[in-house]
Amino acid sequence: MEFSIGVDLGGTNLRAAAVNREGKILEKIAVDTNFEGGRDAVIGDIVNGVNALRTKLSGNRLAGVGIGVPGFIRLKEGFITNSNNLPYLENFPVRDAIEKLLGTPIILENDANAAALGEKWMGAGMHVDDLVLLTLGTGVGGGIIVDGRVLHGMDGMAGELGHMTVDPFGPPCGCGNLGCLEKLASATAVESGAMLMSLSAGPLTSREVYEMAMDGNDKARALFHQMGRALGIALATLINTFNFPLYLLSGGMLPAWNLFFPPLEEQVKLRSFTYRNTRTRIEQATLGNQAGLIGAAYLPFQAMELK
Amino acid sequence: MEFSIGVDLGGTNLRAAAVNREGKILEKIAVDTNFEGGRDAVIGDIVNGVNALRTKLSGNRLAGVGIGVPGFIRLKEGFITNSNNLPYLENFPVRDAIEKLLGTPIILENDANAAALGEKWMGAGMHVDDLVLLTLGTGVGGGIIVDGRVLHGMDGMAGELGHMTVDPFGPPCGCGNLGCLEKLASATAVESGAMLMSLSAGPLTSREVYEMAMDGNDKARALFHQMGRALGIALATLINTFNFPLYLLSGGMLPAWNLFFPPLEEQVKLRSFTYRNTRTRIEQATLGNQAGLIGAAYLPFQAMELK
Repeated sequence: MEFSIGVDLGGTNLRAAAVNREGKILEKIAVDTNFEGGRDAVIGDIVNGVNALRTKLSGNRLAGVGIGVPGFIRLKEGFITNSNNLPYLENFPVRDAIEKLLGTPIILENDANAAALGEKWMGAGMHVDDLVLLTLGTGVGGGIIVDGRVLHGMDGMAGELGHMTVDPFGPPCGCGNLGCLEKLASATAVESGAMLMSLSAGPLTSREVYEMAMDGNDKARALFHQMGRALGIALATLINTFNFPLYLLSGGMLPAWNLFFPPLEEQVKLRSFTYRNTRTRIEQATLGNQAGLIGAAYLPFQAMELK
Repeated sequence: MEFSIGVDLGGTNLRAAAVNREGKILEKIAVDTNFEGGRDAVIGDIVNGVNALRTKLSGNRLAGVGIGVPGFIRLKEGFITNSNNLPYLENFPVRDAIEKLLGTPIILENDANAAALGEKWMGAGMHVDDLVLLTLGTGVGGGIIVDGRVLHGMDGMAGELGHMTVDPFGPPCGCGNLGCLEKLASATAVESGAMLMSLSAGPLTSREVYEMAMDGNDKARALFHQMGRALGIALATLINTFNFPLYLLSGGMLPAWNLFFPPLEEQVKLRSFTYRNTRTRIEQATLGNQAGLIGAAYLPFQAMELK
């Protein structure tokens, strides 16, 4: 049997899964990673994780390893750039280094792109060739799938949809822009909104704001309304741009769907002629936090098909 | 020799050109069309134009005919939908009808998409595989080229970039949205701005507003400044979305480049991390009003290559 290994390098841990050609997870591990340990420690953790799975599946053929990483990937060079969590991996030939240690082909991919590819392969996007995924977490990430493949652009930086301008005079963002989608529609946006609106004496988590909203607190509800509104404005532009059949939302904010979806859809209906006149669907992703893992594992299989 | 024929069905006339494989225009005709004459008259004009070119090039092999049309194209069915200029061509099997009359394969394409493809084949986009074109005329059109081909989306409606939301509380648009790019960055936008700002006793053309701006009129200059600002906000989102090497501007407003480009670039620099950190170029298209004609002529050649 042939299998592939997907690695998801998250903010606090490393997960890896062995996946077969049919997309079934055969074995899975999670390792708390010492991200403060620096470059060699993280690379060591990746190598150990992959080797542990390889041992469990000895006797089978490993097609390759895909690694989803937060940050931009320079695909040709196998570099990571602008990764907030892993600064010491930046501008270092990380792919080649891991490839040498493991003796198997490595493919790097941005984590949101990997999640979009995972949803296309085995999740909510199984039956389409083109989709856009927005990941709603601490920030907002994006992945664009065209013809079954990740849209990379010239430097692997395509799909930075969290930095679409939603309100040109909106709150400033670390990227230099004003009114970015992720300043209005992320967990962070909900949390700073709660602070500004004095929802409680101290800071609240987005989960706590969610619970207040579910209990009927109007201010808390207004924050999810704003989130939906911002997402709807951005999605209308994406729908007018791509005319794809499917737009997926995923991430830690997804449980608040019932709070943010009605204003989202209201905005999309208002702002997109294409939405009103086609069978465009806006749906919840279905693979949860396994999307990135499964998408990363798909990368080696896809590379073989495209050869 | 093998040649192809491109047809550009504009607002007031029909142009057609015979083009060889190298992209050289061999013969060209323009016909004033009686668009009020209805469906049969327009189809007759197309057929006559193509036949006139065919006669001039008799002895050579015709690869096919590409037709650029204002409106959405349902590619599979060969229908035109939502064409403001040619309502009687809507929801009628126009491709099959022309194909039957001419006895040669016909490919329909949206006019802005055809222009983007023309620029990719023979114009400012010759050396890239991926680009976005914005046409700045009465409205704002868009065409997206991915891997050398027009991005169509599921219904041929991709690239409706004139309806990107630039200002969510901006002026209402016929599409139902508020603050569409084309409400802020088209000839119409400049003309209604001139009216609102009472630049003169009566209505002005965008050309007249342009001349006033070039003569130093501050209000007229402000209108082109607003145009550049809106284009910059939209382009920053496009750059963050696609990470393409090239974004082209074309159309009747292009001569005002020196007036609108500085505020445009200021906004893009502010709003796009990707623009500041990559070799992204924003440039003038080079084929002028022949882009659509040349792109339409390329369609049959490209269809042969892809077979």
